[in-house]
Amino acid sequence: MSELRWDPLKETWVIITLERGRRPRDFMNDRKQVNMTVCPFCYGREDKTPREIFAIRTDGSRPNTPGWKVRVIPNKYPVLRIEGELEKRGVGIYDAMNGIGAHEVVIETPDHDRSLAELAPAEITDVLKAYRARLLDLRKDPRFRYILLFKNHGVEAGAAIPHSHTQIIAVPITPNLTATELSVCQEYYKQKERCLFCDILVQEREDRRRIIRDDGNFVVFAPYASRFPFEVRIAPARHSHDFALMADHELAALAEALKDALLRIRSVLRDPPYNFILHTSPPMHLRLGKPGYWGSIPYDFHWHIDLVPRLTNNAGFEWGTGFFMNSTPPEEAARFMRAVDLSMSL
Amino acid sequence: MSELRWDPLKETWVIITLERGRRPRDFMNDRKQVNMTVCPFCYGREDKTPREIFAIRTDGSRPNTPGWKVRVIPNKYPVLRIEGELEKRGVGIYDAMNGIGAHEVVIETPDHDRSLAELAPAEITDVLKAYRARLLDLRKDPRFRYILLFKNHGVEAGAAIPHSHTQIIAVPITPNLTATELSVCQEYYKQKERCLFCDILVQEREDRRRIIRDDGNFVVFAPYASRFPFEVRIAPARHSHDFALMADHELAALAEALKDALLRIRSVLRDPPYNFILHTSPPMHLRLGKPGYWGSIPYDFHWHIDLVPRLTNNAGFEWGTGFFMNSTPPEEAARFMRAVDLSMSL
Repeated sequence: MSELRWDPLKETWVIITLERGRRPRDFMNDRKQVNMTVCPFCYGREDKTPREIFAIRTDGSRPNTPGWKVRVIPNKYPVLRIEGELEKRGVGIYDAMNGIGAHEVVIETPDHDRSLAELAPAEITDVLKAYRARLLDLRKDPRFRYILLFKNHGVEAGAAIPHSHTQIIAVPITPNLTATELSVCQEYYKQKERCLFCDILVQEREDRRRIIRDDGNFVVFAPYASRFPFEVRIAPARHSHDFALMADHELAALAEALKDALLRIRSVLRDPPYNFILHTSPPMHLRLGKPGYWGSIPYDFHWHIDLVPRLTNNAGFEWGTGFFMNSTPPEEAARFMRAVDLSMSL
Repeated sequence: MSELRWDPLKETWVIITLERGRRPRDFMNDRKQVNMTVCPFCYGREDKTPREIFAIRTDGSRPNTPGWKVRVIPNKYPVLRIEGELEKRGVGIYDAMNGIGAHEVVIETPDHDRSLAELAPAEITDVLKAYRARLLDLRKDPRFRYILLFKNHGVEAGAAIPHSHTQIIAVPITPNLTATELSVCQEYYKQKERCLFCDILVQEREDRRRIIRDDGNFVVFAPYASRFPFEVRIAPARHSHDFALMADHELAALAEALKDALLRIRSVLRDPPYNFILHTSPPMHLRLGKPGYWGSIPYDFHWHIDLVPRLTNNAGFEWGTGFFMNSTPPEEAARFMRAVDLSMSL
């Protein structure tokens, strides 16, 4: 069991592993790639993972056998567990609750050697459909306040297993930067009856200097205040508060935009490690006006993906201050990424 | 010139380098140690750096010559510059201001091969006196809202130059996590007329499980909600809102505590890369009740140092959510660090 702990000074939630905590020697080899002789994410190794939760199969194959295109499994070493009660409690001046949640892995392809950028748009669309299916299902659990969906590509970005995958973690709290973003959008909507993100998109599409790609369905751009060199934001051009409500044809358009962005990053920066995070609405039951939650305006947020190549050894203060230094202006980053000739990459 | 930009969605300030921005190829070798044939921080190379701002010299030597014990210089490649006006401006929906500030380097020792942990307590006391002198001086500039003081040890922690040094960056804004911490303490004080951090220390000193060292002057402990494995917090046992108001004998006691903590980390984790950040009060002129600043209660904050070994390739979501996963319970981390026999390290 793990525990969620709240720091009253830093206003931060932390999941602390209580059993099998990592000891000093466990960190010594941490910077090396995991060298697996048998990859549990490949075809024919379905018995090496926990039983699948969801899969896309078009050949009539049975669960937990080969034949899948995308496969979702529980994480074998979950940071949060689905069984049990939260048991929220005070610990003197602190707050804690049990590590209840869900931790799943989306295996994006049966092919061990293909990265997400290398999949065909139709294959990426299947990955996005798996994301959508899992978000919709996990939201049914009233214990979960937020569902984190993120991808780590490359060891330096935290990918312990090289076979391409995405992680989904359902958490019983709202992370604090997520809460900020949600309440900023809500306040803006209250004042103006407009979406903040839509207003940002209007300005960016007029300005064009930071636009990387805009096909009318999805806008791919370098944020004005990019925290990291070559940071990329991907958002639907038309207002949409919830990724999980996207229709199939919208996911197909997103797959094109996402593949394009990943290929441009791979080309400009020579396959750097990267992370992306989905920022979308909290579960619907938290949007129905319950006190202390995200209020009664259901459409104030605008979902987006934040994509960050991991290029620098971050200096020491970002994690402690929330303040960033970025040595590449986003206008320059966008110019480099626009200039990529993708016909060379395919 | 650089520019400070505000992201209205993420509520984050970012310093963006506008001139000589780093291009894609500049990131390719970023993970290698800088290999300098001539270290500009060593004795006899004083002409390789900008002219010194401050130094501790006891041999009557002249500025910018050998003989110093601790030397403070402007950063040769500053992220913020001291000359000019802020020129705060709106850029459509965004906010920006000129990159005005100060960026200094504290060279902690003339000896190229000694790390801060290896300096004698009296030498570390001199380093702390240099910190204090620079904080007091930089605070005279009314353009600066906050002064960041942080150290990177090791390439993976962002130290580009191996010769032991600390960075000081005076910024014209309050970083958002810093602002949170300051306002949390202010609110707590308003409600209870007590310091939040003092209350935390009472509980920690009674509990003892997370205490690493407590000599009555400084408490060194693993925070209850440690964000990182083996995170360490160092704070004065008696209430003090401002590091820069510490007397010489208090800095001497801090030097003992800091050296002890650094040696324990070095011993337990085999000289890991690490960062530390000083969290202290904003400049006094911001504490005098000016609107929008840090109010009229001058003593609500409790200064401290956050020290973090860089052991893991952080997974992808911490930077985007402010939510952390830590695989080592702080009680375990403290137990390992208490158990170190420092007589072996000295």
